[in-house]
Amino acid sequence: MLYIIGLGLGDEKDITVKGLEAIERCSKVYIEAYTSLLSFGISDDGLSTLENLYGKPITLADREFVEEKSDDMLSEAASSDVAFLVVGDPFGATTHTDLVVRAKKLGLDVKVVHNASVMNAVGVCGLQLYRYGETVSIPFFTETWKPDSFYQKIQKNRKLGLHTLCLLDIRVKEPTLESLCRGKKQYEPPRYMTIGTAIEQLLEVEQSRGEHAYGEDTTCVGLARLGSEDQKVVSGPMKQLLAVDFGPPLHCIVIVGNTHPLEEEMLEFYTLNK
Amino acid sequence: MLYIIGLGLGDEKDITVKGLEAIERCSKVYIEAYTSLLSFGISDDGLSTLENLYGKPITLADREFVEEKSDDMLSEAASSDVAFLVVGDPFGATTHTDLVVRAKKLGLDVKVVHNASVMNAVGVCGLQLYRYGETVSIPFFTETWKPDSFYQKIQKNRKLGLHTLCLLDIRVKEPTLESLCRGKKQYEPPRYMTIGTAIEQLLEVEQSRGEHAYGEDTTCVGLARLGSEDQKVVSGPMKQLLAVDFGPPLHCIVIVGNTHPLEEEMLEFYTLNK
Repeated sequence: MLYIIGLGLGDEKDITVKGLEAIERCSKVYIEAYTSLLSFGISDDGLSTLENLYGKPITLADREFVEEKSDDMLSEAASSDVAFLVVGDPFGATTHTDLVVRAKKLGLDVKVVHNASVMNAVGVCGLQLYRYGETVSIPFFTETWKPDSFYQKIQKNRKLGLHTLCLLDIRVKEPTLESLCRGKKQYEPPRYMTIGTAIEQLLEVEQSRGEHAYGEDTTCVGLARLGSEDQKVVSGPMKQLLAVDFGPPLHCIVIVGNTHPLEEEMLEFYTLNK
Repeated sequence: MLYIIGLGLGDEKDITVKGLEAIERCSKVYIEAYTSLLSFGISDDGLSTLENLYGKPITLADREFVEEKSDDMLSEAASSDVAFLVVGDPFGATTHTDLVVRAKKLGLDVKVVHNASVMNAVGVCGLQLYRYGETVSIPFFTETWKPDSFYQKIQKNRKLGLHTLCLLDIRVKEPTLESLCRGKKQYEPPRYMTIGTAIEQLLEVEQSRGEHAYGEDTTCVGLARLGSEDQKVVSGPMKQLLAVDFGPPLHCIVIVGNTHPLEEEMLEFYTLNK
């Protein structure tokens, strides 16, 4: 049996009782490391916070692992119970759907333990979840590469009066250019896009496109460390949020569409300079 | 302090460790009863499954409670720790946002413990969450009242190639017409819309509108008891799903938009008569 277990968003105690009991049954426990594990007390030194709570050693499954060694994990799951832990909900990322497809094709039993993800926890800002349009991702721009397919999607959502959740780029365990050339494994330091960088990029694209999909006066909500004890939520026009220090990752933004009175009442609690 | 704690979707063990610890600190525990609590082992006889796990008595907060007595709960939360338990995630329903607004206006501390909700757990069918458009609700039709605002929303989502999550009507503790007239409290038996009824209503609206937003050959995914041990997921054209017995509530439907290869691979596992 392969258990794919969501850890939720905040810290090690956001796992469900069901997830914890599943881990207890497993002979091997892996944890995905494509996204930020900072709040789970995981660093290069080890996985101690989680391991202490779960009472088991945990193997870090980074990008390399998924590309080269996940078949081994699936073989183990054919003969014993294996847990694969995932930040948020198991179906927040395409990678995990791919893992489920491969496991099912091998005839393995797969059991999913759900948890909160950014896709529903973003509801904390008061904007109703059923009034969101398509979700967009904002990738880090470089001098020569500025992919802006999010622009048209935001435009369509706004024409329909819908809110847009913008997920911000995470670059973890990216091989350095040098290492790609030399075949030697070296990684760039991890990078997490801030709300400030995202807004700068959004406004850069608006300026070059000029179709008024949004602008510096468009109301947005910036959310940092969603679901953590120290989460920070601020609502205001884009230009105002540019000046806010949201602190450590992860960050995301909601571009606000048309609002109902209850949504406005809730946003007011998060507005600066009332 | 008012804790608003998500219970997740499946059963009493879907609560998080953080949620369970918060309940332990609370002097009073309420549970909302607007949605289905069936899978949590809750019936008219009591709340025994949950109460056993949590080790505390729980007060059922039905519609009447929220309309007439929730101010009392907020007063209690001013001087002690009170937990309000919610199926799914605290921000899945507008009602809970309203409760947060009222609590914050009274100057109360509010702490939210997130959990899975249908809005993210629906990812289990393999359709990627970031490719959903606006969510719609399908209300029970009567002879004289057939509100169909969902039709235009589905149409817009489909034009954009997006998936549509359809939430199906739940009618719990609805006063009978007789009781409204006589001022005596009597309730209709609870009703939960099935996937079959929803598809019949969807096709009825398509037939009267005739704008080809979708049709009986449109691929949908029916999901029953999402997140439970006995959840049932079936993918197929609307007319085929009409004949499927999905069993007890809750049910929901996804109307499938344009699909990527990985989404198709995943849907195949849920397809009848392959």
